[in-house]
Amino acid sequence: MAEPAKTLDGWYVLHDCRKMNWAEWKKISSDEREAVIAEFLKLLAKWDVTQSKFEGSHGLYSILGQKADFMIMLLRPTMDELNELENAFNKTRLAEFTIPTYSYVSVVELSNYLPADKDPDQDPEIQARLKPILPKWPYVCFYPMDKRRQGNDNWYMLPMEDRQTMMRSHGMIGRSYAGKVRQIISGSVGFDDWEWGVTLFAHDVLQFKKLVYEMRFDEVSARYGEFGSFYVGTLLDDDKIKPFLYV
Amino acid sequence: MAEPAKTLDGWYVLHDCRKMNWAEWKKISSDEREAVIAEFLKLLAKWDVTQSKFEGSHGLYSILGQKADFMIMLLRPTMDELNELENAFNKTRLAEFTIPTYSYVSVVELSNYLPADKDPDQDPEIQARLKPILPKWPYVCFYPMDKRRQGNDNWYMLPMEDRQTMMRSHGMIGRSYAGKVRQIISGSVGFDDWEWGVTLFAHDVLQFKKLVYEMRFDEVSARYGEFGSFYVGTLLDDDKIKPFLYV
Amino acid sequence: MAEPAKTLDGWYVLHDCRKMNWAEWKKISSDEREAVIAEFLKLLAKWDVTQSKFEGSHGLYSILGQKADFMIMLLRPTMDELNELENAFNKTRLAEFTIPTYSYVSVVELSNYLPADKDPDQDPEIQARLKPILPKWPYVCFYPMDKRRQGNDNWYMLPMEDRQTMMRSHGMIGRSYAGKVRQIISGSVGFDDWEWGVTLFAHDVLQFKKLVYEMRFDEVSARYGEFGSFYVGTLLDDDKIKPFLYV
Amino acid sequence: MAEPAKTLDGWYVLHDCRKMNWAEWKKISSDEREAVIAEFLKLLAKWDVTQSKFEGSHGLYSILGQKADFMIMLLRPTMDELNELENAFNKTRLAEFTIPTYSYVSVVELSNYLPADKDPDQDPEIQARLKPILPKWPYVCFYPMDKRRQGNDNWYMLPMEDRQTMMRSHGMIGRSYAGKVRQIISGSVGFDDWEWGVTLFAHDVLQFKKLVYEMRFDEVSARYGEFGSFYVGTLLDDDKIKPFLYV
Amino acid sequence: MAEPAKTLDGWYVLHDCRKMNWAEWKKISSDEREAVIAEFLKLLAKWDVTQSKFEGSHGLYSILGQKADFMIMLLRPTMDELNELENAFNKTRLAEFTIPTYSYVSVVELSNYLPADKDPDQDPEIQARLKPILPKWPYVCFYPMDKRRQGNDNWYMLPMEDRQTMMRSHGMIGRSYAGKVRQIISGSVGFDDWEWGVTLFAHDVLQFKKLVYEMRFDEVSARYGEFGSFYVGTLLDDDKIKPFLYV
Repeated sequence: MAEPAKTLDGWYVLHDCRKMNWAEWKKISSDEREAVIAEFLKLLAKWDVTQSKFEGSHGLYSILGQKADFMIMLLRPTMDELNELENAFNKTRLAEFTIPTYSYVSVVELSNYLPADKDPDQDPEIQARLKPILPKWPYVCFYPMDKRRQGNDNWYMLPMEDRQTMMRSHGMIGRSYAGKVRQIISGSVGFDDWEWGVTLFAHDVLQFKKLVYEMRFDEVSARYGEFGSFYVGTLLDDDKIKPFLYV
Repeated sequence: MAEPAKTLDGWYVLHDCRKMNWAEWKKISSDEREAVIAEFLKLLAKWDVTQSKFEGSHGLYSILGQKADFMIMLLRPTMDELNELENAFNKTRLAEFTIPTYSYVSVVELSNYLPADKDPDQDPEIQARLKPILPKWPYVCFYPMDKRRQGNDNWYMLPMEDRQTMMRSHGMIGRSYAGKVRQIISGSVGFDDWEWGVTLFAHDVLQFKKLVYEMRFDEVSARYGEFGSFYVGTLLDDDKIKPFLYV
Repeated sequence: MAEPAKTLDGWYVLHDCRKMNWAEWKKISSDEREAVIAEFLKLLAKWDVTQSKFEGSHGLYSILGQKADFMIMLLRPTMDELNELENAFNKTRLAEFTIPTYSYVSVVELSNYLPADKDPDQDPEIQARLKPILPKWPYVCFYPMDKRRQGNDNWYMLPMEDRQTMMRSHGMIGRSYAGKVRQIISGSVGFDDWEWGVTLFAHDVLQFKKLVYEMRFDEVSARYGEFGSFYVGTLLDDDKIKPFLYV
Repeated sequence: MAEPAKTLDGWYVLHDCRKMNWAEWKKISSDEREAVIAEFLKLLAKWDVTQSKFEGSHGLYSILGQKADFMIMLLRPTMDELNELENAFNKTRLAEFTIPTYSYVSVVELSNYLPADKDPDQDPEIQARLKPILPKWPYVCFYPMDKRRQGNDNWYMLPMEDRQTMMRSHGMIGRSYAGKVRQIISGSVGFDDWEWGVTLFAHDVLQFKKLVYEMRFDEVSARYGEFGSFYVGTLLDDDKIKPFLYV
Repeated sequence: MAEPAKTLDGWYVLHDCRKMNWAEWKKISSDEREAVIAEFLKLLAKWDVTQSKFEGSHGLYSILGQKADFMIMLLRPTMDELNELENAFNKTRLAEFTIPTYSYVSVVELSNYLPADKDPDQDPEIQARLKPILPKWPYVCFYPMDKRRQGNDNWYMLPMEDRQTMMRSHGMIGRSYAGKVRQIISGSVGFDDWEWGVTLFAHDVLQFKKLVYEMRFDEVSARYGEFGSFYVGTLLDDDKIKPFLYV
């Protein structure tokens, strides 16, 4: 009889990747561009207020390569709020100069593969992990993933105990990067095309490669991991947004 | 000798996902936009009449992420009616401001994997399930799926009895979500690229994730399920359409 | 030593699927639209003459969902004629308002998996099947398919006798739909991306689903069938073309 | 220890497939179109000179279906020349009215699976096969392919002797089509996404289907062949170019 | 217990592939084009200064076929610099006339599969390989790749010793091309969609084919290699840029 993992679920998450239509952006007057940027900064200021009240969080990142120019990561207690924010952003003037390239819908998740001897609703550490304020670390990495269901490598047909043992070994690798890489796992079964989204933050971008590569030799990834596209980028904090958009 | 499942088939279904071309939508005058919205609301009013006569049903949903801005789900007794409605919508002015992103053609289906001791043509419950009026629940989830035919994991080569046993266990999980998640299964073999479409409705969006994740550990999904893209969204009832389109 | 199936080959076939660019179509004047439609009807009239002389056949269908708005199916004795007709259509004014979405190139095929005790060149029934006038039945279904070559499920490594036995059982299912579903198999090895195209015609669209689903449990499909996209639609006979294009 | 096949390599090959933007093409004046065509014919005349000196070859084909309207096949002794010709064509006015849909980069190849008792550099037959002048036969077929590396069906893990035996049997089928189908194999490992390109020429288009289908039952194809998209078309010789472009 | 390979990591790398929008490029005046080219050459001159100080490197290549018209390869000590250069290029006027078609983000990598008896931080040869100045050789080839994790062919489940033995045999093939092909391996686990990028340089373009084909028969590639798209092209050195852009 199948024994599904149990999950704790926190804030809903939207990753929204866009390219800039630089050619069109350059065509409007400098004054117009200032107005468009001002409107966008006002939106960000509103999101900052939400974040300062711990009612959500967000991050803005410049993405390397042609997959996107920037990524917005948005967290909110309900999916309705995410939907509203997404629609609101789509109606800004800045959005007219962007080309959507990828998005991901998920919810922050902790699973019972990790020991659970606390009351999650009361434990402040667990609550902080379920409703995370995004760290202002300089680098971000996002990728979606599945657990494989293929011939003899079928994660979902394994006994709970085996899954738990493997996940713990996997967690050990993660923990050895404490202070170097912070990770947010968000579940997307029923919400988007992969089963999980993984968002990593680091002070040194090379740590993403070291962590993901080390994990790939671990049975959980080696036999059971399927990975989507990787997005890597740098934090666009407030003083970098204007230079980023300046043409 | 192969023993195919028998199916009962009800109303035909069209899922029609679209993005808004917000930039173009903002370019026309506010008066024009009002006229376009009025034309669309008139169309919806006509569909409401059909629904009130139990001659079809429909739902309008705001979709999360970049896959679509909204989804129309349409049910009618014949495929000809669906085709007419689709063409009629395509000729509306609103359609000019939309970008089609995905559609799905299917027919509401009940299968004989479930016990069948009634005359389906007479049984009001079965009739209601074959010709369902869509519930006005706040969340929707849609995804297409196949049964796998791969090496040793070939659903269509299994004896009927094995398929039946597995489907019953699968159905048990579904039933344990009664009141939380309502589901409409529609068959699309011969109509579209996957074998089934699954449309779920919930009061709490998290229940989609819980249900689909729990089922994934069930052998039917774990070994035999192949899944397409997931679309998740919120109900756009009448008083939300105008705000949704307001720019 | 490999023993390939032998085939009889008839008329060449082009399936040509298009979306309408309704926004642009609406922009031109009603008079212009009439002229464009008149030009298209004249082309169809020419094709009708060819068909009345049994020198080819064609059908026009309204397709459900976003994959296409309409499909033209064209049959001619030579590929050169198909090429000319395709180029001629591409140069019509109507074509300017269409967006090509899918096409398929093949040739009507009968295979020697079926008993062959007649001289195909003389037998009128075989000739009629190789050079079919498309039936004016209200529903159409088109999909391309391959025979699988994957690990232990490799159709092309099976002895001729096994293939023959399986194809006969497959044919039995087909024959049980006589009067309900008519099918045209066209071979496309060396011509297009799949090995065969299957075009079905029915009076009741549900019969497509019943037939294809029943066949899927048959070993030929269950173990050896790979399927492409399915296009389903309704016949656009002469009196339906104008309403279809009317905006 | 792995024993790779040895190859003889001849002229470099570019297959360049394009659609016509008929709507834009019709918009310019008839005089302008004449000028555009004249410029293109001048380019072809230059290529003809090269071909008459046996310093390269080329062919122009009208392609069936929506994958392309025409294909240019270009052969030259160096890749630099191909690159120059490609850039030169891209800068013609005709190119402005085309939409690139597919291209393939390779080099004419003979492999040592076939017996080699001659000095390839001196043998005129081998030289003619490595530097082929394209035959003016009315039909062309192009497709790229790989040798499979999948579980037990891994071509590259087979002993040289087994590969040689299978390739000879494969070659026998090819030779039985002598006079009906001429083929040019070009290698693309390290140059493009598949390992080989296959270009076939025939007097009767049906021979493509017969040849490729017969080969598919041969173990080399049945177990080890992976095939890309097929492009089939008719020769656009000089007197057909103007009618093809006439609108 | 899994034993991951250890890596030495050098400069960050961006491969940026673009097509020219020749039609738009031809529309502007010759004076404007000169200005656009001048701006681009100024950018290249800046990059040359960086390269002359050994603080980075870059190459510009004309790519064969429709995948791209040119590729920029950029190396810098930090990912932030790459990001800045990418954004700066995107804001040039030349970029307005380009269509991004592919990009790849990685970091130059040496792995411990090769014997390591030196202190990498002090060894000038290793340092030169980690921070390579791109050779001005006339041909370039780029492709991304993975190590396979599929059924019995799972690289990441192999003992370190087996991987080491296979990698050494693989390295032997590479070394036999010394002087003919120079290669830069860059790791992209956690950065982009494949695990490695391979960039090859040669004096004779045919050597790419010979090397990659020979390696394909080696167990590392035959059983464990998965390959992405191949980009092949010619060096656009300073005196070739103007002719390349001249229309």
